[in-house]
Amino acid sequence: MKTFGVGILGFGTVGAGVVEGLQRNGKLLASRTGLQLALRRVADLDVETDRGVAVADGVLTRDAAAVVDDPRVDIVVELIGGTTVARALTLRALAAGKPVVTANKALLAEHGAEIFAAAQAGQADLYYEASVAGGIPVIRALREGLIANHIEAIYGILNGTCNYILTEMERRGEPFDVILAEAQAQGYAEANPALDIDGVDTAHKAAILAGLAYGAPVPLAEIGVEGIRDVELADLLDVRALGYRLKLLAIIRHSPVGQEVSVQPALVPSEHMLGKVDGVFNALLVRGDVAGETLYYGRGAGRLPTASAVLSDLADVARNLAFGARQRVPAFVPHTHYGKPRRGKHALARFYLRMNLPDQPGTLAKVAEVMGQHGISLASVRQRETDGQWARILFLTHPAVESAVMAAITELRRDGKIGPQVARYRIADLMA
Amino acid sequence: MKTFGVGILGFGTVGAGVVEGLQRNGKLLASRTGLQLALRRVADLDVETDRGVAVADGVLTRDAAAVVDDPRVDIVVELIGGTTVARALTLRALAAGKPVVTANKALLAEHGAEIFAAAQAGQADLYYEASVAGGIPVIRALREGLIANHIEAIYGILNGTCNYILTEMERRGEPFDVILAEAQAQGYAEANPALDIDGVDTAHKAAILAGLAYGAPVPLAEIGVEGIRDVELADLLDVRALGYRLKLLAIIRHSPVGQEVSVQPALVPSEHMLGKVDGVFNALLVRGDVAGETLYYGRGAGRLPTASAVLSDLADVARNLAFGARQRVPAFVPHTHYGKPRRGKHALARFYLRMNLPDQPGTLAKVAEVMGQHGISLASVRQRETDGQWARILFLTHPAVESAVMAAITELRRDGKIGPQVARYRIADLMA
Repeated sequence: MKTFGVGILGFGTVGAGVVEGLQRNGKLLASRTGLQLALRRVADLDVETDRGVAVADGVLTRDAAAVVDDPRVDIVVELIGGTTVARALTLRALAAGKPVVTANKALLAEHGAEIFAAAQAGQADLYYEASVAGGIPVIRALREGLIANHIEAIYGILNGTCNYILTEMERRGEPFDVILAEAQAQGYAEANPALDIDGVDTAHKAAILAGLAYGAPVPLAEIGVEGIRDVELADLLDVRALGYRLKLLAIIRHSPVGQEVSVQPALVPSEHMLGKVDGVFNALLVRGDVAGETLYYGRGAGRLPTASAVLSDLADVARNLAFGARQRVPAFVPHTHYGKPRRGKHALARFYLRMNLPDQPGTLAKVAEVMGQHGISLASVRQRETDGQWARILFLTHPAVESAVMAAITELRRDGKIGPQVARYRIADLMA
Repeated sequence: MKTFGVGILGFGTVGAGVVEGLQRNGKLLASRTGLQLALRRVADLDVETDRGVAVADGVLTRDAAAVVDDPRVDIVVELIGGTTVARALTLRALAAGKPVVTANKALLAEHGAEIFAAAQAGQADLYYEASVAGGIPVIRALREGLIANHIEAIYGILNGTCNYILTEMERRGEPFDVILAEAQAQGYAEANPALDIDGVDTAHKAAILAGLAYGAPVPLAEIGVEGIRDVELADLLDVRALGYRLKLLAIIRHSPVGQEVSVQPALVPSEHMLGKVDGVFNALLVRGDVAGETLYYGRGAGRLPTASAVLSDLADVARNLAFGARQRVPAFVPHTHYGKPRRGKHALARFYLRMNLPDQPGTLAKVAEVMGQHGISLASVRQRETDGQWARILFLTHPAVESAVMAAITELRRDGKIGPQVARYRIADLMA
């Protein structure tokens, strides 16, 4: 049986998971592929801490470059994260013609063009199933399973920390800060949670998915990103009462008004499968013009789920090496069937708007009038409560252009027709 | 750009969908793969009927064997269905070393060993994404995405007709016969619905999935199959009130008591994602020992969704031809990591039992006693109604061996302790 040597860069949570998975299921994997994966080297700055898995003597090293260069290492697994050392080592491997398997979404989102070109130049495979949605094989689904589809839209719940926080806020009726602090204490959120809760992690994943769907790299700066830091419990509960759930969504769409890539809290119908995704789980709804609507659900992070994705890539890469079929599925296929993503808030959507109006006769009519002047038609209005000074009002709009909604809010605030606190959440019309 | 010739056998619904998909998205597919698929021949006994797609002169023929033999046909797409002509033509193609893409679940379930051996002998690819769950790329997910996982369990809603009927019965409160007749009138069910409603179609798909998961062919005779023909509306509604939904499930499990492959109406928790799958949609819940729980959802049948799967296989096969990588992913990988499926009703599960008891004091105690003698412990008892002669009683059991439950029912009936009408539905404990 042909054997391929594996070198792992980064012996953190996922690295240890990959070693555990190889030890546990290496024989099964060999039976299924007819090929053997042999762990040759693991590099990490910390070679002391017990990761709960044993590796043979001489496998662990602090010298990552030596792992890349080791002639017994046929495939490099990059699990360092970040965009400095990881970038240099990935480029080093690809330049040497060594295939790379990576879970590094930031690297691909920020330096994708460079990395993909290096893979092409080195005729080396670059696989990255683990970079999006952990244990759910969504890269394969998009890149191979749905290859014959124009991807009309992707709606993704791609950050388990955010989904956990929103789910728990709603379930327990506690505000954002309380749940975030608990999530940090329990290890569901990082000490510095900004990457997650401000939507950056989701934006990295959205950039990767959009690139696959539309054949052009999407610069992060082109992605409108809103996180969940300002989500108020009252809105979560009001949204629920209206038959929706508020989820942090990656939205990737191609429509007559252009291509859109955005990250934002948005309303999802409670009765839709995507509205049922709770806790740390991830899900992707994909609408293709041939397959129709498909949905993929599972654990988007964690030691073993992410390892499952890395190991599936190792199997694919080993098969390509065995068959002399490097670049059989290129890491990225640029093409021009779609335009570039269109920057700005041009999306046409329905909106949930929550505003405070002075509790005086006639104010509602004035607000509605200004909205009308901006082309925004109201589908429903609900007055939630009043404290004598302010009335809390919820609007659901008919489809409107997002920039027009923002302009109307700006004008209403400026003229004192509404209080400063406003929530503006798009309704994800998943079918359109 | 390399071009590969495609020959389609069978110009029915799916065949026309494949032609439409190729015409609509052929350029996109070529951009993504760097390869061109050219439709050379389409064979069907009926070359007159308008299928809503145009093919060039000389493409349509009544001679299927000539399509297989045509030197301009590099890849054969078998969409005839059935196990006679389709089998002969598939074997003919594979023997000639021509790769085959098929949607034929019956052929694979009933003659898989022969077909897989022929693929191996001919060193020809055999791809069958379209045979299970239509537009959802679940074969890829199992065979490649989850390749590093021991598959602990698969729970599948795999027949859109059955799921549509059960959903509509429940939604509209109408009995089976009424909904079936409507489904037939609307084209959601065949004139002869037996293959669907008796669970045979689901069993074919279960056999294919089980073979992939456990590396051994599963003879259809080993699969316990119960359909939905006898499902009563009252049970559907009672199940719902208990927090479950009744779904026709394929259950494929490996547990300490052995490997199980079965098809049966079973209770799924309403709050689980799998309990939300309504109408003609399909879904697969897969539990792997590394990835954990993943779920795949979408349209399991239909002209275009099935075509999407066929086209994805065509892309894979063309890539393998272009890279000289035939049999890169073998159609079937036999191995011995698991035993054979264990025949019989040995599964340990909770059950929903609905019985009619004589409406007299003390009868419930007698029934409970007999159950206890068979090792069946009752978790809850509900009396639904009584007509003065019979009381309709629902039991939920604690985990019990299915054969013991059946034996208890047989004894209770024989001794006249219960009426002849009994419903016995397993509760799918998706997490265990």
